[in-house]
Amino acid sequence: MISRTWTWSVLLMVTVLFLYYQLISTTRNVPAPVHNLQPGHSTSSSEPSCINIWRDLDDEEVVSVLALLHSPAAGLNLTSVKESTFSDNFVFVTELLRPNKTDSVAFLDHQTAPPDRYARVTIKRNSAEVARIEEYMVGPLPVSYTTVIQPLSFIYNSGRSETPFLGADVTALEGWMESIAESMEDVVLDLLLHGVPIPHHLTLKDFVAASNDQIWFEEGRAMRWVSFSQISDANTLLPQGLYFKADTTGRDPEKWRVVMWLYNDIVYASGEELRNAWRSPDFVKLPGNLDGDWTRLEPEQHMNNQYSHNEPPKLTQTGKGRVEVDKKNSFASWMGFEFYLSFSQVTALSLYDIRLDGERVMYELGIQEAVAHYAGNDPVQSGTSFLDSLFALGGDVTELIPGFDCPSYATFLDTKHHRMEKTFHYKNAICIFEAPSDHPLQRHSRGSWVTSFSNSVLIVRYITVVGNYDYLIDYIFYLDGSIEGAYWSNNKRYGYHVHDFLSSSIHDHILNFKADLDIAGSKNTIAVVSVAPKEVDYPWSSKPRNTMVLEKSHIFTEDEASLNWPANGASMYVIMNHQEKNAYGESRGYRIMPGTGMGSPVHLTVKNSSNLLNSAKWTEHDFFVTKQKDTEPRSASPQNALTPEDPLVRFDSFLDGESLVEEDLVIWFNLGNHHVPHSGDIPNTLMTTSASSVMFSPHNYHNRDRSRALTKGVRIDLKEEGFLDSEEELVQ
Amino acid sequence: MISRTWTWSVLLMVTVLFLYYQLISTTRNVPAPVHNLQPGHSTSSSEPSCINIWRDLDDEEVVSVLALLHSPAAGLNLTSVKESTFSDNFVFVTELLRPNKTDSVAFLDHQTAPPDRYARVTIKRNSAEVARIEEYMVGPLPVSYTTVIQPLSFIYNSGRSETPFLGADVTALEGWMESIAESMEDVVLDLLLHGVPIPHHLTLKDFVAASNDQIWFEEGRAMRWVSFSQISDANTLLPQGLYFKADTTGRDPEKWRVVMWLYNDIVYASGEELRNAWRSPDFVKLPGNLDGDWTRLEPEQHMNNQYSHNEPPKLTQTGKGRVEVDKKNSFASWMGFEFYLSFSQVTALSLYDIRLDGERVMYELGIQEAVAHYAGNDPVQSGTSFLDSLFALGGDVTELIPGFDCPSYATFLDTKHHRMEKTFHYKNAICIFEAPSDHPLQRHSRGSWVTSFSNSVLIVRYITVVGNYDYLIDYIFYLDGSIEGAYWSNNKRYGYHVHDFLSSSIHDHILNFKADLDIAGSKNTIAVVSVAPKEVDYPWSSKPRNTMVLEKSHIFTEDEASLNWPANGASMYVIMNHQEKNAYGESRGYRIMPGTGMGSPVHLTVKNSSNLLNSAKWTEHDFFVTKQKDTEPRSASPQNALTPEDPLVRFDSFLDGESLVEEDLVIWFNLGNHHVPHSGDIPNTLMTTSASSVMFSPHNYHNRDRSRALTKGVRIDLKEEGFLDSEEELVQ
Repeated sequence: MISRTWTWSVLLMVTVLFLYYQLISTTRNVPAPVHNLQPGHSTSSSEPSCINIWRDLDDEEVVSVLALLHSPAAGLNLTSVKESTFSDNFVFVTELLRPNKTDSVAFLDHQTAPPDRYARVTIKRNSAEVARIEEYMVGPLPVSYTTVIQPLSFIYNSGRSETPFLGADVTALEGWMESIAESMEDVVLDLLLHGVPIPHHLTLKDFVAASNDQIWFEEGRAMRWVSFSQISDANTLLPQGLYFKADTTGRDPEKWRVVMWLYNDIVYASGEELRNAWRSPDFVKLPGNLDGDWTRLEPEQHMNNQYSHNEPPKLTQTGKGRVEVDKKNSFASWMGFEFYLSFSQVTALSLYDIRLDGERVMYELGIQEAVAHYAGNDPVQSGTSFLDSLFALGGDVTELIPGFDCPSYATFLDTKHHRMEKTFHYKNAICIFEAPSDHPLQRHSRGSWVTSFSNSVLIVRYITVVGNYDYLIDYIFYLDGSIEGAYWSNNKRYGYHVHDFLSSSIHDHILNFKADLDIAGSKNTIAVVSVAPKEVDYPWSSKPRNTMVLEKSHIFTEDEASLNWPANGASMYVIMNHQEKNAYGESRGYRIMPGTGMGSPVHLTVKNSSNLLNSAKWTEHDFFVTKQKDTEPRSASPQNALTPEDPLVRFDSFLDGESLVEEDLVIWFNLGNHHVPHSGDIPNTLMTTSASSVMFSPHNYHNRDRSRALTKGVRIDLKEEGFLDSEEELVQ
Repeated sequence: MISRTWTWSVLLMVTVLFLYYQLISTTRNVPAPVHNLQPGHSTSSSEPSCINIWRDLDDEEVVSVLALLHSPAAGLNLTSVKESTFSDNFVFVTELLRPNKTDSVAFLDHQTAPPDRYARVTIKRNSAEVARIEEYMVGPLPVSYTTVIQPLSFIYNSGRSETPFLGADVTALEGWMESIAESMEDVVLDLLLHGVPIPHHLTLKDFVAASNDQIWFEEGRAMRWVSFSQISDANTLLPQGLYFKADTTGRDPEKWRVVMWLYNDIVYASGEELRNAWRSPDFVKLPGNLDGDWTRLEPEQHMNNQYSHNEPPKLTQTGKGRVEVDKKNSFASWMGFEFYLSFSQVTALSLYDIRLDGERVMYELGIQEAVAHYAGNDPVQSGTSFLDSLFALGGDVTELIPGFDCPSYATFLDTKHHRMEKTFHYKNAICIFEAPSDHPLQRHSRGSWVTSFSNSVLIVRYITVVGNYDYLIDYIFYLDGSIEGAYWSNNKRYGYHVHDFLSSSIHDHILNFKADLDIAGSKNTIAVVSVAPKEVDYPWSSKPRNTMVLEKSHIFTEDEASLNWPANGASMYVIMNHQEKNAYGESRGYRIMPGTGMGSPVHLTVKNSSNLLNSAKWTEHDFFVTKQKDTEPRSASPQNALTPEDPLVRFDSFLDGESLVEEDLVIWFNLGNHHVPHSGDIPNTLMTTSASSVMFSPHNYHNRDRSRALTKGVRIDLKEEGFLDSEEELVQ
């Protein structure tokens, strides 16, 4: 199936349309300046004691950076976006280059000056024979005589700062693909409409020939597969089984050629060959697959059913609640947790300097990349593996609907980012709320009494819609100090034989997250505690006994490691600080474990994917532990998708045997699921069965359960016979 | 640690006390007779169309059964409980012997007469040289001339109907253990109080010498280990490190002997030897471990903290809600689901005839047994594996606290059971409620619009407190037709070095559940769908590609099977009916998978446990599939714990190679967790991190998502540029 193919083209086309037809000149609104508080941390108020050094560039900063980039002195030979064509060079992304952890921690912990602010800028160099995307860092900001523009490569272990971009000529490509379709109109239209009831009003214009960004190099030639689908919101449900392979080497459409056609798994060397076969009486035609009521996603009429008279229960908040959000500084606190929010058009929401009772437990928590990897018989389905940050996880966030996407009492935050010399302002794209649990946090009873404690969590949520996926991302905070990262995926793909002439499309979703833990400081070690069956001799036993033992290792591994969740949950991995003990002499730690999703999160089924090549090696295990380095801030780059064999960032190179003993450790963990859709996925996959999560939970971190002092509890004394309400002798 | 040791003794002692001192004569209350509706099923009302054939015996039935048992004709030589001593024979359990599935289904589906009602009766035959527990079935009921009393063995694959019971002389044992303690008072008291600040007012009476039900046979001798603990609600936290081994063969305490003492892992052949060693100057004494504030479970004073001014959100219900409960018939329905509730003193709550839109999906769902298996250096900890149904999972249910254990708007049900010729009536022991989800059921958007659907589930909950465990058991129903069984454990055990002189006690909790699925009828087969990495050649590709394939097998196994959850979630197990297809020709099925607990549920770490022997072979894998047989209604018996080598029910014998192809299948699945407690478990383990669950989810069962028509949804049309609130050109 070919969903993103089309979506991707749309994204680009929409971009194109922006440029030429939809520029509305408006006055710039300058936001109130961020007030600069002094360092030094408070734990009780929602006022951060530091400025949010991870806040994205504001309009003023971006405008000054753009001015500098366009200045003759810069010598970048740029055209302003609104005057640019696809053969010009223009500014694509302008966002904050987040400060190095080293500098940030010095500021947070040692009251040094805030780290200098830098912009990360990407430029589309379309004037080059091979168009490319160039990366620059510009700073320090605000722009002054000390500000310099320099290639950005220190955070990319490829050592490069630029990537060839073969998608530059998208409009030419759209036109060329259309012309090929027109040249085969008789065949194409007949095949697409085969078996469709007449009369209908569909023409070739109701379909689109589209290609995705997957380019296959064969002897240096840039090959693409092109497929057809009906133009519809539900286009992802409407594959037509007709494809052609195109050699689109170079930038001159005159030189592009159709290499082969593919229909019903049969290869045809040319359009003529396909046309001749199509004319023959024994040519097998697949039934068409058109849009209809069955793809509708709206609430249905028969919602007025026997059950709809009464209301379901709701989550409600009386009073102001316990969540405090400082919107100006993007800072939130709840029950002793506090953290900064940082938004990026590439990676959406990250949390920084997450503190528990004033003590940092995580420096950073955020999504890095999302892969959707397909498989199938046709070249488009088989060749499809989306690296979603290319489409901008942050640029695709959606407005959240109060009462549906989040409780209506939630606090909603807007987002803003700068791209193609514009400001994009999204309303209510992030929600923060406390949610009550439907089960007690703790409860215990003995014969004569019972205690029970209510439970609730803090949830920070956003939803990003990349093509036909809605990814719901939650960061969940628990009263005991646990932190959970969760995702629910929701899409319109199909499995088995689920409608008329549609059939299965298996795919894996794997999302990579970074969790930079600082447990009682940054000198951490990964320990493991395992339970294992064992035959043991005891002084008090005449014969050996089959029992189990606890195997503790204070240092699970000395080298950077790739790990999978253990079978039968037999091992517990704990990030510990062996220099910092709790009151009973145990090393303070946080455990990492599969959370409250469905079962354990998965990693990618495919090994050494022919699609991904070296662009997403993090997909191949459940989680990884590496030493924190300012040169390895992210496991991926949006440009990785463009040159998968030689990506800007190679994650597997992070694992180069550095010591993990009493070092600053980073956990890179994956969430995801194998999706084999079935009829229950029509018209839409359920979030309830496609969730996964990872939890970080205190492990000997405190001296006792932290939540006890924070939750409303009750103790009830009962009759001496326990919970017996009445006890009656049966008279005989 | 020795919690249950003491608890178990208490249970028995309390029982003893009942008998002699606390008999209050009351008049019997006769419940209104159950009205007998005709068969034939309705789906829209909460009125069941059949009587609840699984309802427990009512008082009248029990009274008539007791009269029959005591009648001279019965020849059982019974003493009425209130006049009995521990050397008499008396009636212990009287409950419903649940009807065979064969008879029940005939009644439900073919309008035959309701199955005859039988009582399951256990008698304690204490007059025998070796006391035993005898099982009888008595019926048909009500008692008439056709009613017969016969040994109950057809549901026990041991072929037996009786079990030796070595716990009969518990009062004598308590007295004997006390006398041993007194004979060593100087040593015992000194060791128990070593290091305890003076003055204190503790004497030997503040401690108890207790043994658990674990009896070790050595050359035919019945050996027990006896340990000491302080008498306290928190006794499970107060091990003292002092033990003796007792030969308690036979029923004459005069013949019982101390075999060895154990202190600080050193074995002493006699009390004298221990006393002599204790007198020597170099004898190492362990610090005492006494009760104190740190064990308190009450809400704490400093709940009045900075966070307690504002209220957390709540689950609230306006109006009557959508849950309908017929308390008289113990029948509940919600949004097209309907089922009967059946309560047993042994296995607590089971659900029967669970229907979705009128069609049965499960005949039975209920817990079978719960194991807590310990390990450690001392003989009591190492020798402890509780089989909790011995303590009566149903007899130990607790009153649920509205607003804490369940939302205050929940429907609460009472329970009632008959034991030792008495009626025990528990108030609010079961709650049923709809709970809103904190995330949407589905949501999807494309550029110009978004749809989102709210979500909620039905939860049926009870909490059973066995010794020092509170087990919270949920059965959860989802709008899409999914059914989930979940459990949260909550106990007061410890890990690592967590308080003064306490140290770790690792243990596994494994709970076994029965799920008798009937998917579109009872002729079911287990299928498997797996994703696997593969190198594949394609006609359209010049070289082989690394991708993945879907491996479907309509018959996963032809023989009864023991299964574990697959690594990386790579396999989906689906119970299918290959004769019943959905609209697209796919076999209708329900998938079984790990649910929304923490990660995947686990099985027992220990292999061939020296404690459990053959009494709980179901602990050794994650789940099992067997053919349904009327002779295999339960995977365990409460008496299994008494003769673990030769138990009444041997579960592994269920797996005897019968065909699973188009047969009536039963899933036996385990929930549980490996518990390595840490300081966060003080004073009480958190439910949030000790949950596990298994989910049964429709898989091509319907033609499309069922929930779509049942959930409130919204569609919002947005600006053409998608979710963009404002888009501003940056003036240069």
